[in-house]
Amino acid sequence: MMTGWEDVRAEVLRRIRARDWAPGAVIPGEETLAVEFGVARATVNRALRDLAEAGLLERRRKAGTRVALLPVRRATLDIPVIRQEVEARGESYGHRVLARRMEAVPLAVAVRMGVAAGTALLFLETLHLAGGRPFAHEVRWLNPVVVPGGVIPDFDRVSANEWLVQNIAYTTGDIAFSAEAASGEEAAALGLCAGDPVFVTERMTWAAEAPITFVRLLHGPGYRLRTML
Amino acid sequence: MMTGWEDVRAEVLRRIRARDWAPGAVIPGEETLAVEFGVARATVNRALRDLAEAGLLERRRKAGTRVALLPVRRATLDIPVIRQEVEARGESYGHRVLARRMEAVPLAVAVRMGVAAGTALLFLETLHLAGGRPFAHEVRWLNPVVVPGGVIPDFDRVSANEWLVQNIAYTTGDIAFSAEAASGEEAAALGLCAGDPVFVTERMTWAAEAPITFVRLLHGPGYRLRTML
Repeated sequence: MMTGWEDVRAEVLRRIRARDWAPGAVIPGEETLAVEFGVARATVNRALRDLAEAGLLERRRKAGTRVALLPVRRATLDIPVIRQEVEARGESYGHRVLARRMEAVPLAVAVRMGVAAGTALLFLETLHLAGGRPFAHEVRWLNPVVVPGGVIPDFDRVSANEWLVQNIAYTTGDIAFSAEAASGEEAAALGLCAGDPVFVTERMTWAAEAPITFVRLLHGPGYRLRTML
Repeated sequence: MMTGWEDVRAEVLRRIRARDWAPGAVIPGEETLAVEFGVARATVNRALRDLAEAGLLERRRKAGTRVALLPVRRATLDIPVIRQEVEARGESYGHRVLARRMEAVPLAVAVRMGVAAGTALLFLETLHLAGGRPFAHEVRWLNPVVVPGGVIPDFDRVSANEWLVQNIAYTTGDIAFSAEAASGEEAAALGLCAGDPVFVTERMTWAAEAPITFVRLLHGPGYRLRTML
């Protein structure tokens, strides 16, 4: 007898994998499955939702639920605070604020943040250290409008990275990863040679009404971003 | 009046952000909240589960639910079949099988796959093309044991990447991203210069009983892996 939604999911998954339900086929409705499995409709719904989130089913309000033609594989990435990331490697964390000033945003960043070119935002440059050695180089533009009370800390004790996670809730954002050749300045900050490959993370977050921050983070050779599938 | 779990989630989120419930604090139990909000306990459970999955709450079976001290930000990555990734960019997809032979796995790969060094596995090298130009270079080790009937296609029509997604279900896996300097051979395959930065994706998948495949995928400059937060 099936009792929980996990049992329903396991059976649905078995049918998909055994091709009892072929790729692209519409599967029976929730009520039909609830009767067949002897469970509540909400239990079937929970199982199908889980499989849809995993990319194995495609659900459309009117057309019913289909087996995905090509299951989209999904991975969940945890994006830790850099201090925690360093400490999880068993190394001591430190950071150095290299720059902190109000500055007119350059055009490329203004476009990315959806503000007028030349708007004055807080420019921050931070070097994150692991065991005293450079671990990541961070360049950040922060919109002071989103800081409660307008009082921006100096970020000497707590990095902007950690302070923002603790203090500013975002509603939406995006993140992109790429490989680039380090510029001379970036290489110098990380103790590399110009042209060395760096792992680049660019992240943009918005509150309901305003852009919060755009950050460009560089990790040197040897850095791996890893997660389970 | 609250009617759905989304309403409950919105109110819980509001309390966390307003610090009515401070970081690290234990929040009221599900039954208490169900009474306060006038909803079923299952509705509260659904909302709290969602916030826990988003990293904002920490749930422990006996100790209750706490507000996370440092919310873990999570991103979901879709891992598309390369053909779909290229077509989504509006370019035509093609691929070329550069190598396909049984070969003894080198030690580093054997360790990664959990097989004895020297085990004979299928070695595959594939160049993925976008608009006729190199898009990604793929080196893959495939365990023939996991292929139903033991009949391995030649992968000329459908790439191993796509064929595996369609035909072999994995139970667990991991994926890692890094930036590396292209070797001479890798650079030649992608039309780059040796030492140019490449975006490296390494993925390992397992079935219940056996390793399925280890793949190392290289994308050249300009490639960005992007997702919403």
